[in-house]
Amino acid sequence: MFGVGAGIDRLVGTSGSGGSSENSDGAAVPFHGSHQAGIATPAQEFVNLAAFDMKSDASEDLRTLLQGWTEAAAALTAGSLYESVSATSGQPPPDPAEARDLGPAQLTITVGFGPSLFASRSRLGLARRRPAGLRRLPAFRGESLDPALSDGDLCVQACADDPQVNFHAIHLLARIAADVATLRWNQQGFGRTSATSRSQGTTRNLMGFKDGTDNIRAEDSEAMERFVWVQPGDGPDWMEGGSYLILRRIQMLFDVWDATSLEGQERVFGRRKVSGAPLGGRDEYDPVDLSAKKDGEPVIPANAHIRLASPNYNDGQRLLRRGYSYSEVPEPGSGQIDAGLLFICFQRDPERQFTPLQRRLADSDALNHHTLHTASAMFACPPGVGRGGFIGEGLFA
Amino acid sequence: MFGVGAGIDRLVGTSGSGGSSENSDGAAVPFHGSHQAGIATPAQEFVNLAAFDMKSDASEDLRTLLQGWTEAAAALTAGSLYESVSATSGQPPPDPAEARDLGPAQLTITVGFGPSLFASRSRLGLARRRPAGLRRLPAFRGESLDPALSDGDLCVQACADDPQVNFHAIHLLARIAADVATLRWNQQGFGRTSATSRSQGTTRNLMGFKDGTDNIRAEDSEAMERFVWVQPGDGPDWMEGGSYLILRRIQMLFDVWDATSLEGQERVFGRRKVSGAPLGGRDEYDPVDLSAKKDGEPVIPANAHIRLASPNYNDGQRLLRRGYSYSEVPEPGSGQIDAGLLFICFQRDPERQFTPLQRRLADSDALNHHTLHTASAMFACPPGVGRGGFIGEGLFA
Repeated sequence: MFGVGAGIDRLVGTSGSGGSSENSDGAAVPFHGSHQAGIATPAQEFVNLAAFDMKSDASEDLRTLLQGWTEAAAALTAGSLYESVSATSGQPPPDPAEARDLGPAQLTITVGFGPSLFASRSRLGLARRRPAGLRRLPAFRGESLDPALSDGDLCVQACADDPQVNFHAIHLLARIAADVATLRWNQQGFGRTSATSRSQGTTRNLMGFKDGTDNIRAEDSEAMERFVWVQPGDGPDWMEGGSYLILRRIQMLFDVWDATSLEGQERVFGRRKVSGAPLGGRDEYDPVDLSAKKDGEPVIPANAHIRLASPNYNDGQRLLRRGYSYSEVPEPGSGQIDAGLLFICFQRDPERQFTPLQRRLADSDALNHHTLHTASAMFACPPGVGRGGFIGEGLFA
Repeated sequence: MFGVGAGIDRLVGTSGSGGSSENSDGAAVPFHGSHQAGIATPAQEFVNLAAFDMKSDASEDLRTLLQGWTEAAAALTAGSLYESVSATSGQPPPDPAEARDLGPAQLTITVGFGPSLFASRSRLGLARRRPAGLRRLPAFRGESLDPALSDGDLCVQACADDPQVNFHAIHLLARIAADVATLRWNQQGFGRTSATSRSQGTTRNLMGFKDGTDNIRAEDSEAMERFVWVQPGDGPDWMEGGSYLILRRIQMLFDVWDATSLEGQERVFGRRKVSGAPLGGRDEYDPVDLSAKKDGEPVIPANAHIRLASPNYNDGQRLLRRGYSYSEVPEPGSGQIDAGLLFICFQRDPERQFTPLQRRLADSDALNHHTLHTASAMFACPPGVGRGGFIGEGLFA
């Protein structure tokens, strides 16, 4: 029941020149560099985040996999076919080709290593190379994590302005991995909820509130060095210039939320819904006055999200958020939309940044009545590579 | 862990004027008309298709629901807020507002009625109004249907060029329905796989083949009347100008497909992968010669999809396809991507169009080795309405 027949061809002449769509010029994000792309890159519109578990115990297989992924990622992000679809007669096409005519669409591919890759019992022999901060997050109050959607030995984050381009990237990288690693989970997100560049406006999450107003912008290189990129001396050496990715899948409980008054919703976030202004302020970017009181009560409630997430309450620590909304097929019989936030953030030191912040939020945040954390993962994303190198090569040095 | 703070506001001045984004002019599809929008409308990039089951037995409740949906759909498709977010102090906001700044994005909302709405035992009292052709599809060979993703009393198809606009539409319509109907299932699709207008090029499905080359184009008004719109005399009267929607969720079995040679893949579809040309032809829109032979064998194999789906093999019958790709979180432990096609089609008479075609395909199509039909539904979409009317009003005449 697939389509076949006669009509109009917008693709004439593109055969054999993958990525030659009209918008391919200027829509490619450089793959090589001192940092992996997809972290400081202005957040694209869509994400496809997948995790893999190693089937092989051989360090050489991991190395070969990373080399293969690097080669493929360099080609795909440039808008090229991984390999000519008709390269070898009688063989399966190396590239499944569903993104053949779509151009690079700002695709970035970011690879990370989960704590389990370094497990001491693993015969990969990487136990001594594990970064001290790379470990499963502690349990947080109220969470209800699905192990099948959490953790993993490896992750691949594909971000692009076209979800089919992301899908193709994960599809192809899963094929390349097939002999040595198996897909553990695969999650799609749309509608970026974080601006990561001064060129981007803030957007609304699925609760209807502007999200990411206070995010780090990649142009703020001081903040990027201080809060996002692993620095010399942080250890281990192979992570210098890298960053730690944390995923929290946060389901929104719309039945209760939608029945909450506007004022109640605004007190949960500590901001106005329409304008995004902090309570007590007028415009979205007005300063957040956490000390303001009215009639003896704090204008921004004690348990408001904006207060508990504030750097003032968290030793001045900040995160680079790079989240997306998600919507899935609901559980049969639930009668409820299953949607929320794929909260993705990057940071230099999870134990000083995400973990204490999330502990505070899990204990007290007014948002907890309206959300449920259902999946969690952490990955160490190594630095970028130059031509001829491969992602994670420092692990094998 | 949601974002709050200070930055750049692209939304200044839009407060209180929903849908006033820069692209809202010219990006709205008219809601009122003789046909519901979302059928002949040039296929947008994304779909959100949801089904609902009536909780209420009262015909009056169904009528009120349809009136509410009509009112909301007219506002949303115009890019307006359903109701001012701050209309009533102390009350839940009528509009959850996550699409507040996104404009109409070509949103269409199409409502349909499932066979179960007319069940003779239902106290809604609609049994005598059921169209003869509106019934659960017969079982087809090889299918493995998930009842929780199939069927339903009512459907809402939201299509737009922004998935968050679609999400918001389903979210709001589910809220409006909450007292009388409950969400049965909710499925998202991306990357339209069918062109429905001469202004649109063909695109690739997730198997990497161009899809929809031979689709009906809405500009072909003769074909639309003959194959898509219910005509006077077809019966019942309340469906004149309407159309029947069929959904088939078709999972693609990538492990086998990706291991199939290029030639093998091309023999499954009967077309070249890169160019889309029919086997024996050179360009995508070359005529399909089903009688051509080479060395005594048909050039287009006997079980090729293109042959069995051809109108020549199906009494000249055609369908208006309006499908999308999907990708879901895989079953835990499967190790496989869970993705494929939300095959959606519209037609005048399912029993003469889809059913015999699908029976032939289910019995013989070479594609069956690479796909699995996992969900199925049929809905009668009534005609469009004028201002002051409501979708499905003819049911109550």
